[in-house]
Amino acid sequence: MTPTITAFKQSPDRGRGLARDMRVRWALEEVGQPYDVRLVSFREMKEPAHLALHPFGQIPTYEEGDLALFESGAIVFHIAQRHAGLLPDDANARARAISWMFAALNTVEPPLVDREIAMREERDKSWYEARLRIVEDRARKPLGELSIRLGDAEWLDGAFNAGDLLMAAVLFRSKGSGILDEYPNLSAYVARGEARPAFKRAFDAQLAVFTAASSG
Amino acid sequence: MTPTITAFKQSPDRGRGLARDMRVRWALEEVGQPYDVRLVSFREMKEPAHLALHPFGQIPTYEEGDLALFESGAIVFHIAQRHAGLLPDDANARARAISWMFAALNTVEPPLVDREIAMREERDKSWYEARLRIVEDRARKPLGELSIRLGDAEWLDGAFNAGDLLMAAVLFRSKGSGILDEYPNLSAYVARGEARPAFKRAFDAQLAVFTAASSG
Repeated sequence: MTPTITAFKQSPDRGRGLARDMRVRWALEEVGQPYDVRLVSFREMKEPAHLALHPFGQIPTYEEGDLALFESGAIVFHIAQRHAGLLPDDANARARAISWMFAALNTVEPPLVDREIAMREERDKSWYEARLRIVEDRARKPLGELSIRLGDAEWLDGAFNAGDLLMAAVLFRSKGSGILDEYPNLSAYVARGEARPAFKRAFDAQLAVFTAASSG
Repeated sequence: MTPTITAFKQSPDRGRGLARDMRVRWALEEVGQPYDVRLVSFREMKEPAHLALHPFGQIPTYEEGDLALFESGAIVFHIAQRHAGLLPDDANARARAISWMFAALNTVEPPLVDREIAMREERDKSWYEARLRIVEDRARKPLGELSIRLGDAEWLDGAFNAGDLLMAAVLFRSKGSGILDEYPNLSAYVARGEARPAFKRAFDAQLAVFTAASSG
């Protein structure tokens, strides 16, 4: 059965792959699972039909038969459990990969998103510069610790897995804004993620939505 | 094999159950798994021995034989997978419960933590009052959406599961600061969580650490 995911009809990132459908597309491409995409507008995201799928009115969602899921982390995990290739077979290695999935979303991503929000929404406030420094220092803490742990390894714990997929996707979002350049091994880690054929297919697919929407 | 978790030697929350070991203790109590606790000081958390267990130098960690995990979400998930009682048997219901686990940690918790940080660290800044209003509105968005989804149900999706455990634990942290009072059904939801015997045992166990530390 072909699953259907949702994505922005008009992504605010202008096709740069920063929206959270990118993670789910990437996971589906890694395991070779074809999928359909239903595009939703900002208005549609807040309507009852979409809220029934996603209580927080966001994208992506994932529908497969009578299963409906939300939260990109949970969707990536579901895909990784259903298909070979994104989680190790060994039970302990699998549990550690799941630690990295949660670390990406609960430890590394929140301060980076907080920084993004400040840069997007507080730029005209009197406190912007002073607070940005605080927010950036807050984001540097987990980034520095992650950089130390990664060292010169290729991936976080053995072969590429769903933990790396989510971590690289989280870091990828901050790539354009400079902070990642302070950690050359993290920049190289993200570049290794981007070099994966599955990443490229996922990136091209979300970019095509933006290109079609802007020419349409 | 009895697992060992780590917790603060001197918790900054003074035994109010706000540290993240509370979630793991609660999960262990729900499934009836005895556990040992190793207390770590703030200094020890940043030393190589602890960083080898937890790359971000936090608590809790979880050790069981040669398995070492970090991130409370991943640890709760591991416990829920190993033991009956915290995840539904039905595959679809199980996947939905995992959606709620990620929603608790990646959608609901970050703005609440951001608000906590502002209240703790930015109180003396000139921008404090103005920014607190922004942060509170940001936190109200997922809280309002969660309140609508919960409605008058007892738990988020059928019987109590690991998704409720993490969601209630996340909301519990904000209980003392007023914002939850705006959502009576969420307050009642947290109260149902707190009324569970396993929650009480977990709460008492972490409180005993603080009591012993302050009388010692």
